Amino acid sequence: MTETTGYSGGGFVHVKNPHLDSMEEDILYHLDLGTKTHNLPAMFGDIKFVCVGGSPNRMRAFAQFMQRELGLAGAGEELPDICAGSDRYAMYRAGPVLSISHGMGIPSISIMLHELIKLLHHAKCRDVTIIRIGTSGGLVWQQVTGVTSSGLASVSLCPGIEAGSVVITDTAVDSSFQPRFEQVVLGDVVVRSTELDKDLAEELLACSREIADFPTLIGHTMCTYDFYEGQGRLDGALCSFSSEKKLEYLRRAYDAGVRNIEMESTAFAALCGLCGLKAAVVCVALLDRLQGDQIRASHEVLWEYQQRPQRLIAAFIRQRLGLGPAGRSQH
Amino acid sequence: MTETTGYSGGGFVHVKNPHLDSMEEDILYHLDLGTKTHNLPAMFGDIKFVCVGGSPNRMRAFAQFMQRELGLAGAGEELPDICAGSDRYAMYRAGPVLSISHGMGIPSISIMLHELIKLLHHAKCRDVTIIRIGTSGGLVWQQVTGVTSSGLASVSLCPGIEAGSVVITDTAVDSSFQPRFEQVVLGDVVVRSTELDKDLAEELLACSREIADFPTLIGHTMCTYDFYEGQGRLDGALCSFSSEKKLEYLRRAYDAGVRNIEMESTAFAALCGLCGLKAAVVCVALLDRLQGDQIRASHEVLWEYQQRPQRLIAAFIRQRLGLGPAGRSQH
Repeated sequence: MTETTGYSGGGFVHVKNPHLDSMEEDILYHLDLGTKTHNLPAMFGDIKFVCVGGSPNRMRAFAQFMQRELGLAGAGEELPDICAGSDRYAMYRAGPVLSISHGMGIPSISIMLHELIKLLHHAKCRDVTIIRIGTSGGLVWQQVTGVTSSGLASVSLCPGIEAGSVVITDTAVDSSFQPRFEQVVLGDVVVRSTELDKDLAEELLACSREIADFPTLIGHTMCTYDFYEGQGRLDGALCSFSSEKKLEYLRRAYDAGVRNIEMESTAFAALCGLCGLKAAVVCVALLDRLQGDQIRASHEVLWEYQQRPQRLIAAFIRQRLGLGPAGRSQH
Repeated sequence: MTETTGYSGGGFVHVKNPHLDSMEEDILYHLDLGTKTHNLPAMFGDIKFVCVGGSPNRMRAFAQFMQRELGLAGAGEELPDICAGSDRYAMYRAGPVLSISHGMGIPSISIMLHELIKLLHHAKCRDVTIIRIGTSGGLVWQQVTGVTSSGLASVSLCPGIEAGSVVITDTAVDSSFQPRFEQVVLGDVVVRSTELDKDLAEELLACSREIADFPTLIGHTMCTYDFYEGQGRLDGALCSFSSEKKLEYLRRAYDAGVRNIEMESTAFAALCGLCGLKAAVVCVALLDRLQGDQIRASHEVLWEYQQRPQRLIAAFIRQRLGLGPAGRSQH
């Protein structure tokens, strides 16, 4: 059984569950919100942008950054965690922007997305754009132009050193490099499309051209269920393969169009696509996986890397809101 | 390819990775610890019990509870988060007990376990017992004895109302009720055993008999990659099946021996088994899935439920340490 992406009319979020209408109350358990305990349309009805990322601290920092970027009152003050009653996820808002953490891995982001999508539905939100701003491992081979011994120009690929590059995902693929997400439903596998919004990806790439101090590219993103063996790392508690086999696998991924590796994009693309949300994935590469497995950069460097997707998304949201280029930077 | 459980000699934790020996430094990135920056043997060498659970707040509360239960100095004071430099996981210690959060789902617990197992290896810990204390959905059909119309005694099964029951896992099974964990390694599937330590499960059940105020049972635990569609919930953003199909699936799970459903046990059993850690899974059922999908109990009731596995593990650790029954309760 294969399901494909479907966008709904009217710009509303599209829940595909006939049982929801007959529920008297909907408790969004892991968000500590509910339809009887909270006025969701009043709290969230004007949300236009939802940004999600793994780390709660990073998503709080992003909401604070957006407060400043959008010139909102209260910028610089502490923002309340809307999900403070639960420690599963953290949620902050800055004007029309909602910023939510999703933890690590497909199961964790799936729980959050089910409840977030129901939240947007209950709140009657319209024309919502959702963007995952994350971290990843990079596969950034660089083109090198040289001259052969016979005097001819040659172009070859060699492993790049571009940690800190930002990758905008065109297609999320699984560990076999296929654009699919396998969801188990009552013990059976349902295959779902992992297409993302192509226009949104191009719009984001255009925005990136205004930010000169880091490279941004479009490519496939590989999504795995595991950080160590699943991504071919040699430094886990278990490892049964050689460095050569690892590099062979990563090279095959590169040849299939993969430019970075993370752990949420296929489920994110599938769920958002089915529910009519225009979705993008924008991740910074914390390291070049062709150079190593351990994340060795200093806390300061890693923090600056993690701000790069945030700065790109801030530029995009400012542009969408007609605010023009940023007046101040995050630094 | 099938891998089976193997225990190592000398009681040491068993990492199965020949590459680790040649690494000059091992950065446990998501724990914000490392072999060059921290004296891991001094910090952790005397750890004998590791308890893991999804929620950081709950694992802090458990460490504080163990401080009191073990009569340690500083009981009642705030405990420092050993992983304070990262917001991915939280880690606390109380005497020989380490308490760590693992987030939700197999990918999240796998990252933590790889780094925890390397930590225990670097710290030269011996004879470590590891227990997941978690929350779950219950499938607790109750035996009801009645009398048939012909006057004969009959025993039938009907859905139970035993939210708050504690389930000790004998075997973790996947969504097809099979005792296996499928790990993708370089794009290929490796099947791993999900057996847990039978003697440890029996020892825990014996401990539970001293705690009279909640039911404890041994059974299979089903581990899924998804909380909504994957566990047959009717209340997600997507649902394509009827209530009848849901109950049919849960009934099949029950008939296969499943007594509760959660999202980490197969990976936990597989990784701990391969690395020679004696492991157990002890989860409270927050609701009876045969009665519903939403978690409707009050915060207070849910908090008390979540203390039940903690109280059982405290009794077990006190017994192992020769401290006798608890002198004071958590309340």
